[in-house]
Amino acid sequence: MFPILGREGPDVEKTMSNSAKLLVKLNWVKAGATGTFTLMPPLQRSVDKLCRIIENEMNAVGGLKVTMPSLATAGIWKKSGRYNDMGSELLKLKDRNEANLCLSPTHEETVTSLVQSLSPISYKNLPIKLYQIGPKFRDEMRPKNALLRCREFLMKDLYSFDDNLENSLKTYKDLNKAYENIFNRLNLDFFKVQADTGTMGGSSSHEYHIESPIGEDTLILCKNCGEAFNKELTVDDEYIKNCRKCGENVKIIKSIEIGHTFLLGTKYSETFKANLITKESKKSLIVMGCYGIGVTRLVSACIEVLSSKNQLRLPELITPHQICIIPQREGYKSDITLKQSEDIAINLSQLDNLKDYEVVLDDRLSLSIGQRIKEASNFGYTFGIVVGKSALEENPKYEVIDFKNNEKKLMINEEITNLAKHIKTV
Amino acid sequence: MFPILGREGPDVEKTMSNSAKLLVKLNWVKAGATGTFTLMPPLQRSVDKLCRIIENEMNAVGGLKVTMPSLATAGIWKKSGRYNDMGSELLKLKDRNEANLCLSPTHEETVTSLVQSLSPISYKNLPIKLYQIGPKFRDEMRPKNALLRCREFLMKDLYSFDDNLENSLKTYKDLNKAYENIFNRLNLDFFKVQADTGTMGGSSSHEYHIESPIGEDTLILCKNCGEAFNKELTVDDEYIKNCRKCGENVKIIKSIEIGHTFLLGTKYSETFKANLITKESKKSLIVMGCYGIGVTRLVSACIEVLSSKNQLRLPELITPHQICIIPQREGYKSDITLKQSEDIAINLSQLDNLKDYEVVLDDRLSLSIGQRIKEASNFGYTFGIVVGKSALEENPKYEVIDFKNNEKKLMINEEITNLAKHIKTV
Repeated sequence: MFPILGREGPDVEKTMSNSAKLLVKLNWVKAGATGTFTLMPPLQRSVDKLCRIIENEMNAVGGLKVTMPSLATAGIWKKSGRYNDMGSELLKLKDRNEANLCLSPTHEETVTSLVQSLSPISYKNLPIKLYQIGPKFRDEMRPKNALLRCREFLMKDLYSFDDNLENSLKTYKDLNKAYENIFNRLNLDFFKVQADTGTMGGSSSHEYHIESPIGEDTLILCKNCGEAFNKELTVDDEYIKNCRKCGENVKIIKSIEIGHTFLLGTKYSETFKANLITKESKKSLIVMGCYGIGVTRLVSACIEVLSSKNQLRLPELITPHQICIIPQREGYKSDITLKQSEDIAINLSQLDNLKDYEVVLDDRLSLSIGQRIKEASNFGYTFGIVVGKSALEENPKYEVIDFKNNEKKLMINEEITNLAKHIKTV
Repeated sequence: MFPILGREGPDVEKTMSNSAKLLVKLNWVKAGATGTFTLMPPLQRSVDKLCRIIENEMNAVGGLKVTMPSLATAGIWKKSGRYNDMGSELLKLKDRNEANLCLSPTHEETVTSLVQSLSPISYKNLPIKLYQIGPKFRDEMRPKNALLRCREFLMKDLYSFDDNLENSLKTYKDLNKAYENIFNRLNLDFFKVQADTGTMGGSSSHEYHIESPIGEDTLILCKNCGEAFNKELTVDDEYIKNCRKCGENVKIIKSIEIGHTFLLGTKYSETFKANLITKESKKSLIVMGCYGIGVTRLVSACIEVLSSKNQLRLPELITPHQICIIPQREGYKSDITLKQSEDIAINLSQLDNLKDYEVVLDDRLSLSIGQRIKEASNFGYTFGIVVGKSALEENPKYEVIDFKNNEKKLMINEEITNLAKHIKTV
């Protein structure tokens, strides 16, 4: 029942961020071509859980899920002007007929062409919000820190289509609320700041960040008036000391970006001629927005800010497996404690919230309890259940370890079930 | 509540298969670069449901889910010899540093390199079964029939690692059983046949097919002794008439391949030096298998064999939405029937099996009931519920349409709830 994939991971580079070191050491990622990684089973489970949370929140605001191809014609990227703007970050290739293609780093061109092919769309059918969760490709000059900056990564991107700016702003607010829901469900301390629109274009944008010394962004935050923006927005050194809005002292922090929202206006709908028919039966350009969360990046960022040097930690809701059961080492009455452990595993796995492989039995009886507790703690389980000597008493008791709070408590079966029932999963 | 994405789809090519025509006409796919398609919301729901079924069955046989990158170094493909063998079907590109990369059409090279980096693996930790569901790329010379033969498609691929041939055969049987479970859950009439190992290599392989006149494969089936194989396996014309095993007359059918399993032996583990330590503490080559289901292809194949010219049909379990509620057209007491429809939608959506957007309210009251019934039938809902005149009687009754069996019946609320409760979803 305990899935081991061979020896411990390889040595890590000293310059790596702690999250990257942990991911590599614990074999949660395996490197492929430069800047590409295989997500190994535990990480895959976290990523899948995060995807479910994101889908859930996107559906709740009327998002419709799609999958757009990664391959795109060079033509649509030339049309938007980004074939050049993206520079060598855009991976280019030719098919067998020498047609020029590229690997999409984002999908404004594809989705706007698609909506154009359906247009003119009646205002009655707007807003439309299309989203996907899939791979994105970016030929980073310096891939680093594993999934924090890599060449192929998992992204949730949503594109919104409204009949006018006012409604587009309403959609923008809804989506920003959905983003806050996602980050709140992960219990993250996040900052929402004004940001540069960059190559994306558009009239306004906001980013979501979490504080981290290894972050590549710098945020300027004013406690007094709430002004908050990415340093890249200002060239004026003055504003790095005093708030550009109220003049008070500002706080400056390093951070990792975990989400980005853009009001695009008609930049892409104009280029691709994506129209609607208004209430007044007039043709008009569709007003767009786009909204991105780097899924693999967000999981890494969580690990970065929550873990210690050796102990990988994730928000409970996206921890790969919630419970690890550790029977005593091979020896005196170990057949009994193994059987007890199996029974606990089976019982807990029947709970609705734990039935999807949330309970793992570490039946490597050649290892000491201590060693397996240490591994379980490093691995980031929410709870450990040790089935040791006190399980052999007339009224069996089990040591339950809360790895996050570093607390231990002896519990009987009913108490464990009660505790387990209240673990939130997704 | 009713998601419309603009006008009806574009004209279709006459030479297309019926499933491709339906997918295009109903806007379930939108074409991108040659041989690439966006999966639109209804199709995405079907695909997601199929993915859940597949994951479920893969997990049940001990499969561990991963995500391998699509980008791979040319190096590992040269090492296996398939950089040339695949010919121009392999999409090649260079990164910003002129390093040679390719877009993976399958992942034997990547997964075996990965397992090598963990090896030698103790026999105690085998078998390992790694699977993923993700995009695959193949530069088809003649992409056709939309998702049946395209350049970028969704695939489930599982790779198994065993300590010896005997255990590899056991894994092979388990996986073939899992495949049968998947196809049975879809209620498909499928054929399992012996097949060519092709560029994959290995010692043995089986394919799963469904019968269809537009299929590109030909199967030779013997009713007498059960012998069944893909015609590509034989060059002897004799065997196209009489069974190569028992001599009886054979049946020949056209078919679409929906799954493929391979016993790979040590072909890749030898090339990539993926080893294990046996019980006898000796080093030995890991014995592999690989198992593929083209997910988007399977959904298309289902549509191909189940649909009529205008009515798209899917296995119930993977139908995008189960129920469509149709209130009467704007007019006499239409406010009441709309309210009744909303109440039914809300009630049914609270059922556990229908809560994930399985119930759609077609509130386009400008359209006649008849027109919306026709659309709902073409769209492939399992049931339609018409809230018309009989809903205005003292004891409201609703017309429930079973689209698959083309049956209608008047039902009261409780009967509808009872019917709805028994719809299987995933």
